[in-house]
Amino acid sequence: MVRLRGFQKLTSIDEALQRFFDQLRIEKLKAVTVSVRQALNRVLSEDVIAEENLPRFDRSAVDGYALRAADTFEASQFKPKILRITSEDEVSKKQAKGVWTGNPIPKGANSVIMLENTKRINEKIEVWVPVTPGENISKEGEDISKGDVAIKAGTRLKPQHLGLMAALGITEVDVVDKPKIAVLATGNEVVEIGNKLEEGQVFEVNRLIISALCQELGAEPFDLGIAKDSVNEIVKRLKVGLESAEAIITTGGTSVGASDLVPAAVNNIGEPGVIVHGIAMRPAMPTALAIADRKPIIILSGNPVAAMIGFEVFARPLICRMLGLKQEFRPVIKAKIARRVSTALGRKSFVRVHVLQHDEEFFAEPISTRGSSVISTMTRANGYVVVPENRGGLEGGELVTVHMFDSVEVVDGSV
Amino acid sequence: MVRLRGFQKLTSIDEALQRFFDQLRIEKLKAVTVSVRQALNRVLSEDVIAEENLPRFDRSAVDGYALRAADTFEASQFKPKILRITSEDEVSKKQAKGVWTGNPIPKGANSVIMLENTKRINEKIEVWVPVTPGENISKEGEDISKGDVAIKAGTRLKPQHLGLMAALGITEVDVVDKPKIAVLATGNEVVEIGNKLEEGQVFEVNRLIISALCQELGAEPFDLGIAKDSVNEIVKRLKVGLESAEAIITTGGTSVGASDLVPAAVNNIGEPGVIVHGIAMRPAMPTALAIADRKPIIILSGNPVAAMIGFEVFARPLICRMLGLKQEFRPVIKAKIARRVSTALGRKSFVRVHVLQHDEEFFAEPISTRGSSVISTMTRANGYVVVPENRGGLEGGELVTVHMFDSVEVVDGSV
Repeated sequence: MVRLRGFQKLTSIDEALQRFFDQLRIEKLKAVTVSVRQALNRVLSEDVIAEENLPRFDRSAVDGYALRAADTFEASQFKPKILRITSEDEVSKKQAKGVWTGNPIPKGANSVIMLENTKRINEKIEVWVPVTPGENISKEGEDISKGDVAIKAGTRLKPQHLGLMAALGITEVDVVDKPKIAVLATGNEVVEIGNKLEEGQVFEVNRLIISALCQELGAEPFDLGIAKDSVNEIVKRLKVGLESAEAIITTGGTSVGASDLVPAAVNNIGEPGVIVHGIAMRPAMPTALAIADRKPIIILSGNPVAAMIGFEVFARPLICRMLGLKQEFRPVIKAKIARRVSTALGRKSFVRVHVLQHDEEFFAEPISTRGSSVISTMTRANGYVVVPENRGGLEGGELVTVHMFDSVEVVDGSV
Repeated sequence: MVRLRGFQKLTSIDEALQRFFDQLRIEKLKAVTVSVRQALNRVLSEDVIAEENLPRFDRSAVDGYALRAADTFEASQFKPKILRITSEDEVSKKQAKGVWTGNPIPKGANSVIMLENTKRINEKIEVWVPVTPGENISKEGEDISKGDVAIKAGTRLKPQHLGLMAALGITEVDVVDKPKIAVLATGNEVVEIGNKLEEGQVFEVNRLIISALCQELGAEPFDLGIAKDSVNEIVKRLKVGLESAEAIITTGGTSVGASDLVPAAVNNIGEPGVIVHGIAMRPAMPTALAIADRKPIIILSGNPVAAMIGFEVFARPLICRMLGLKQEFRPVIKAKIARRVSTALGRKSFVRVHVLQHDEEFFAEPISTRGSSVISTMTRANGYVVVPENRGGLEGGELVTVHMFDSVEVVDGSV
């Protein structure tokens, strides 16, 4: 029990991330081609260039009549202009043709008058207001012009992006392959769910949490199971991980000495091994970052809450980079913190809060916790506030930025 | 061309929703049992009741030494108390046993002193501060007590909920079945992607968008294809939808007369048929809500942007109710609107905006649009602002609530 969590020096989050990514030199993963029907939430690998104009032809932006603008000049409700309705493909002088929103503008017409500014009388219409040439017409290419970048590489595809691609006639799209992330738990005291617990044992929860967090980001988890607190066993499983996946995330056991077993194992399997160990943050201080076989290994605490926060800070940006996402942050909300919270100076603290909305205002209630191991603090919270190293806490009533990992609770149903 | 979009009366969104849901009497769908490993983003059907205490036993909340509090009373750095380290299962008077966070508290001990408040000297430790009974111990049941509601019915399961269930030893969970939503597009001028366009034709984009929106909410889209502008054909496909799905969403064609074809078809297939047609909103005014065979039918505009907003306002709350979700809102952000926007009085307007974050402040840039049919306004926007009926617009610089449907763009990387 000589060297427990007595790190000689804690590294700041920013420095840890910088050293990790500097040495890693992550390349965006290769592209795979998928149907636009299967592309929801995938990340675009290359810019989508429009090969057509959108709209493809001049079309009506309203329901009304296509006509020649000059025929409406000086029209008023007292002195309407009278035009004859045509069903021909071409609109001649003193003629009008009914069009619905989206219909092509017939030849000869140069504007559209809205239906409500006309009155139909048998085969004629009265026009009550003048229109100018081009009025109420969506011009060919007005939305997107041929050759334009319609959607940028690195965009996570939402329903509206799929719609835009379909409008451009695109049926297949190149998206970034899903990063495969191997997930390993360690610890003599942790037991796979579905089994019986013996005295002093607890169920292993971290693989489930970390795998789900990977899936939320669009990565594919690969299960390395649970390793006993043995460097040999950990090495064996890490090697499988390096062969099968693009990155490894481990969660360490909490039994005696375990916090150093994974770093020791990692240093056994490849260069440069552990780069940073011990981060100036709370929770998740014992997190370590490593590289072996040019692949990233993120070594998280065995404490589920610390593992989640460690994932948030280190694994999330890693996976985003593998996907070629320039940035993707959790939704943030500015909320009034309900009461004072104390945090440790010299460490970046992640304070879990529950955000309520009431009358268009947001309030963040800190979740009281004794020890970060209490997993229900994560289910009672819906977001977290980051308190910088140079502050000893948050004042009651202070306006804080909350990073949301679940939805806001609306207490009055006002939205 | 007698009755175009000349609705006799527009119904407010609130009234439309109320009449729709009053007549529908939606029941939450039946439950299905899934593995916790497959339960991410599913909605919990019944409360999860803890069948065990969490923690299951008194355990250490810190790394340190378990001991008897009384042995530390009056300890100070100048007058440390000296205790002998034991490796026995039980801690006797004047003894201490090393424990890691999460380890069971050995018999005889009633508190834990943090490692940093001690100094080890061979087989003894110096204790520098006094602890009180119970200090640094997570008591059995402190997180969750046996019989407590651990997670409420109607919760969408996030990684942290899966972790909590695993901690409780739960391997399978009852979640609400995925609502099956039949999606039909109509229109003579719309063509399935992958085909060649003839003059005046455009690609059909709405089924792709609506299906993806359904998937995002955890519903299962069922494709009814594209119906030509014919009541008979629409009726035929709607009947398939009623047989195969729990709800139908249609998007109407924009060709002559098409805006009434779907309501006419719906009125053909069952009672009460169309309940509301014509909503005091912009875009999506021609939306209609109907019921046939006790199943909801949401009739959206053929204009993709109006279809998305109509989905947001009517289909989203419908699907949430089918899932038994009490509330689930999009993330919201308070942002300063960059410039004045005019909207129509008497209608609720949905103004698309692009939200930027700069120096911890949020700015919403209105997306300029000519006609709501421009689909790229949805890919350039990442959220929308709702302007109430009694306002003619938003003032430049005004603080508005933005409902986000894509992530915020951070321009300085400050987060």
